[in-house]
Amino acid sequence: MAESVPRIVIVGGGFGGLAAAKALKNAPAQILLIDRTNHHLFQPLLYQVATSVLTPGQIGSPIRNILREQQNTTVILGEVSGVDKDKQCVVVSSADRAAVPVPYDFLVLATGVTHSYFGHDEFKRFAPGLKNLADAVAIRNRILQAFEQAEAEEDPSRHRDLLTFVLVGAGPTGVEMASAIAVLVRNTLKSEFRRINPESARIVLLDMAPRVLGSFSEDLSEAAKKRLEKLGVEVRLGHGADQIDAGGVMVAGERISSKTVIWTAGVAPSPAGKWLNVNTDRAGRVRIQQDLSVPEHPEIFVVGDTASLDQDGKPLPGVAQVAIQQGRYAGKLIHRRITGKTIPVPFRYFDKGNMAVVGPGFAVLQSGKIHISGILAWFAWAAVHLQFLATSSLRISVFLQWVWTYLTGQRGSRLIVNHCGAERAKPAVEEGPRTSEMLLPQ
Amino acid sequence: MAESVPRIVIVGGGFGGLAAAKALKNAPAQILLIDRTNHHLFQPLLYQVATSVLTPGQIGSPIRNILREQQNTTVILGEVSGVDKDKQCVVVSSADRAAVPVPYDFLVLATGVTHSYFGHDEFKRFAPGLKNLADAVAIRNRILQAFEQAEAEEDPSRHRDLLTFVLVGAGPTGVEMASAIAVLVRNTLKSEFRRINPESARIVLLDMAPRVLGSFSEDLSEAAKKRLEKLGVEVRLGHGADQIDAGGVMVAGERISSKTVIWTAGVAPSPAGKWLNVNTDRAGRVRIQQDLSVPEHPEIFVVGDTASLDQDGKPLPGVAQVAIQQGRYAGKLIHRRITGKTIPVPFRYFDKGNMAVVGPGFAVLQSGKIHISGILAWFAWAAVHLQFLATSSLRISVFLQWVWTYLTGQRGSRLIVNHCGAERAKPAVEEGPRTSEMLLPQ
Repeated sequence: MAESVPRIVIVGGGFGGLAAAKALKNAPAQILLIDRTNHHLFQPLLYQVATSVLTPGQIGSPIRNILREQQNTTVILGEVSGVDKDKQCVVVSSADRAAVPVPYDFLVLATGVTHSYFGHDEFKRFAPGLKNLADAVAIRNRILQAFEQAEAEEDPSRHRDLLTFVLVGAGPTGVEMASAIAVLVRNTLKSEFRRINPESARIVLLDMAPRVLGSFSEDLSEAAKKRLEKLGVEVRLGHGADQIDAGGVMVAGERISSKTVIWTAGVAPSPAGKWLNVNTDRAGRVRIQQDLSVPEHPEIFVVGDTASLDQDGKPLPGVAQVAIQQGRYAGKLIHRRITGKTIPVPFRYFDKGNMAVVGPGFAVLQSGKIHISGILAWFAWAAVHLQFLATSSLRISVFLQWVWTYLTGQRGSRLIVNHCGAERAKPAVEEGPRTSEMLLPQ
Repeated sequence: MAESVPRIVIVGGGFGGLAAAKALKNAPAQILLIDRTNHHLFQPLLYQVATSVLTPGQIGSPIRNILREQQNTTVILGEVSGVDKDKQCVVVSSADRAAVPVPYDFLVLATGVTHSYFGHDEFKRFAPGLKNLADAVAIRNRILQAFEQAEAEEDPSRHRDLLTFVLVGAGPTGVEMASAIAVLVRNTLKSEFRRINPESARIVLLDMAPRVLGSFSEDLSEAAKKRLEKLGVEVRLGHGADQIDAGGVMVAGERISSKTVIWTAGVAPSPAGKWLNVNTDRAGRVRIQQDLSVPEHPEIFVVGDTASLDQDGKPLPGVAQVAIQQGRYAGKLIHRRITGKTIPVPFRYFDKGNMAVVGPGFAVLQSGKIHISGILAWFAWAAVHLQFLATSSLRISVFLQWVWTYLTGQRGSRLIVNHCGAERAKPAVEEGPRTSEMLLPQ
């Protein structure tokens, strides 16, 4: 390729970054996509990995595999730590190398969000959040480990805490995970334990908001809540978690004892705003213009969850569809600009609708004036999610897994793998040996 | 169940322990199976997880799921740290609890092996071994990471070390892994990189023995070696690794620079011999009698890789078939003893044959006087391995994956997931910023 070809750097291989790269497929440019993992993650199904339905490999595909036929694009595993707007370069570190500046002519930042503890970072130790595959595997380990500990525990009075699961935050992730845990205990784990009854597990879904799925209409929130309760989930609204520690959660003066608390509440944007040193909204997302560029920097675009853009007086939501449409727009705009074509009309988000699943065969769907809940919405949910998986092999694999799980109740991967060597059995000091007669079935 | 029913404790949920538990299916007994993981691992395919062909979930099944219909059996996740032969109990620790003694009337130890560095434990840091799923995922991360680092590395002189893979030990694991890496670089990764050619990777298979697959006949060793060389693997025999460090391996005075060295050489038995304080062979395996019990302790059985038993003047090999047949025998013997039936004839291993795979569509098979190599042996290998997977869903899943990989070259899971937060990019200190022009495709 000639030296004169423009250099386009895309940071992030999520929905936004990948859409931008694909939109530049035929552009006469050198495209460099940088991500700190080697895979594009299908985040909407991450809760299914955390609850053992799918394996990590079913929702993650190597980015370079997805883009292997796009010859103008190089994929790099690396961590971006800053942007120099004046010199037009991003600072990239990768394994065991010093940070190097990488020059760009156009920059697309699609760096997403991480989970946020709203200023309570001390909760993190006790209530892990769910944003990447390592998080999902860690949460899967914790949920399955709780049942294992209860089964190994000869004192029935200690079963209660171990079999109580608290989800803090009743947005889509909290609702989907709560219902998936409810089905896990009722179907999958049935008849596998001898000393405990997994069905006796208590699953509590908390939110300070007055309803679940706050981004949906009230009738759908109500339908979801009813369904959750039917599945055995205890829904507690109007109060958040005041305190989270090793023993459980404090809510409105009441203590819920639990060994497994999961944070499904909030997200915070990536540091893109700090790197660029530009205007952000209150949450820290970069305020972008109608063409998705940063004010005074027509060569820098910010897309997806880490960007802030109003449409019809309301901020766009942090969902995959916004990221995909914005990434695609930014890619097309850059392509047109470098080929001297007319610039497209300002970006406009087309809302295809919003869905959340509540257990097998039940979802809520809101699209314009259409509000439906139940099996039809679930089929729509399944079809859309399969369609948006990155490769056809994943589509087949996830589809077969869902059919299998539906028919047999068996899940894709219920492994507990201790990857770090630290979690393993650390016996607590206790007063003298205890009798262990109860360790054997009576 | 009545208190008077005998208590049988089985330690280990591998091939031996699981076979013992299943053989006791209808026994009037309380059976407790203890394992330090929650899953039965199909070790013969572990190298396929390490080389991205299969996902961890395809070769690991929860032990309690396999035994869910066996009502007389309780499965416990716990770590055994000792045996008290006089008081007839094993000492078990499980997560956050003090060690407790668990009483038994019969004990089956099926605690397997771990990898051994033959007294060179300092090699461990630089050359990870392969025994469990966490090992396999760590090795997968390292192999894939090497290609990522090379692609991110702008200095071509540093590509050589990153693209050199050394396997220390040319037994079945070393041979199978070397051929799987060779196929990975030639088929799967083809056309995904822009700055490096994965096909240029150097794969070195070392062994101090004069031939590969020393447990097979000489003609099959020779056939495997030829096949490895055809796949592009450099086979170096007659010298082991004298030294392994961060920069590579020293072999017979020559330095092979490599960032990825994998230990596929030796195994050491579990501490069962120390727990029992009984006679062991030189390797540390417990010397057992013809009925698989420990001398003077007819209630204690040791089976599988951690046991030492001669047959026709030769020690039995440490393979899955021996463990399965021994486990089954021990289970049956205990069942007969507690129901007052006659004791079976002494244990005798029936050798069904030995197989190793060398790349797609090629295996070596030795069974009695039958020695074959090639595609027929591969079909036998595939059929046997599918047959011995723990559940029918895994059989289907692994079969479909193999067909898919064969047809498309695509593998099951090429994720790099940093589970422990420590491996991530630690930039080395370097002298000033380097130019990064080469970071973009030329």
